Amino acid sequence: MTGEALDEVVRLLGRLPGLGPRSARRAALHLLKRRDAHLRPLAAALVRVADDVKVCAVCGNLDTSDPCAVCANPVRDRSVLCVVEEVDDLWAMERGGAFKGHYHVLGGTLSAIDGVGPEDLRIPALVRRIEQAPPPSPEVVLALGATVDGQTTAHYIAERLQPLGVAVTRLAHGVPLGGQLTYLDDGTIDAALRARRPFA
Amino acid sequence: MTGEALDEVVRLLGRLPGLGPRSARRAALHLLKRRDAHLRPLAAALVRVADDVKVCAVCGNLDTSDPCAVCANPVRDRSVLCVVEEVDDLWAMERGGAFKGHYHVLGGTLSAIDGVGPEDLRIPALVRRIEQAPPPSPEVVLALGATVDGQTTAHYIAERLQPLGVAVTRLAHGVPLGGQLTYLDDGTIDAALRARRPFA
Repeated sequence: MTGEALDEVVRLLGRLPGLGPRSARRAALHLLKRRDAHLRPLAAALVRVADDVKVCAVCGNLDTSDPCAVCANPVRDRSVLCVVEEVDDLWAMERGGAFKGHYHVLGGTLSAIDGVGPEDLRIPALVRRIEQAPPPSPEVVLALGATVDGQTTAHYIAERLQPLGVAVTRLAHGVPLGGQLTYLDDGTIDAALRARRPFA
Repeated sequence: MTGEALDEVVRLLGRLPGLGPRSARRAALHLLKRRDAHLRPLAAALVRVADDVKVCAVCGNLDTSDPCAVCANPVRDRSVLCVVEEVDDLWAMERGGAFKGHYHVLGGTLSAIDGVGPEDLRIPALVRRIEQAPPPSPEVVLALGATVDGQTTAHYIAERLQPLGVAVTRLAHGVPLGGQLTYLDDGTIDAALRARRPFA
């Protein structure tokens, strides 16, 4: 392969999650064959987000405005605050469209192995946010991953919020829609069984 | 998800081969978290290749110069011309480093289903190149894929070149290095058996 700029593109694309060296070469070639339809618009959009996208000082979301569109939206419900691990979890909730409240993005989970403590996440900011919220305090929904780190983080946050007397809830565990029992792990089946509901 | 520019980045990344909507969101988030280390360099490199990379008029390779570095290299062997389907095949050959001759990139394979005929590929350019080459004519190595379309294209090119009296060869078929017989298809085993060599 020749051309330093091209090598650089392949190298940088190959460092994206989900792309390796081989698929990065394929992607670079794909872009070069569609210069005006794909390559230039992508380059321009990347330049734009690099300059325009900010971290929302209130919730930690990424947006071109600060506070972000969710925080600035006067129609959204101030009585529920949904705590998520990452910005893409917030995006996933928003795609669903079922949640109308506000968010708080932690920026990760507590992790003893990776040395991530509460101060490395936006947990102190969450506590401050609840303390300073005008009464009544919002309900805090912990929408963290059903992983060891996610649940450790959820327990830690619930403990930190306990003295503030706010209602803390978590997402339900159970059979995902479209899920077949054969393919589910024992833990999920157990959780779904224990949380069984009257058949309406 | 909010912010038009961000949506645009996710949409454009998601159209790359190897990335879907989900991994495009992950890639966009990854880039936004590493703005100076990854996002800005990638945007700059893309802008550079969009402006600088040209198609070599001689062989069809992509490079910042035309003729490309391979064609312009006076050390390379003018007596062998390797015909490949795509630029990434040329890159693969160059990574191996075993081939020291010149290339000719077809830009695809003949395909009745997709309506790709000889005039859509750089086959006429190949014939002209051989005709106009100063004698002796180079050997033409057909390094096309061992697929139906690749082999159809190889046969077609061999027929077109026959009147010119050039030597036409193809890559050997056989067991790939590191390959285990259990995982090989019958066709490959058959080809390897028929092309067996004295054990040295």
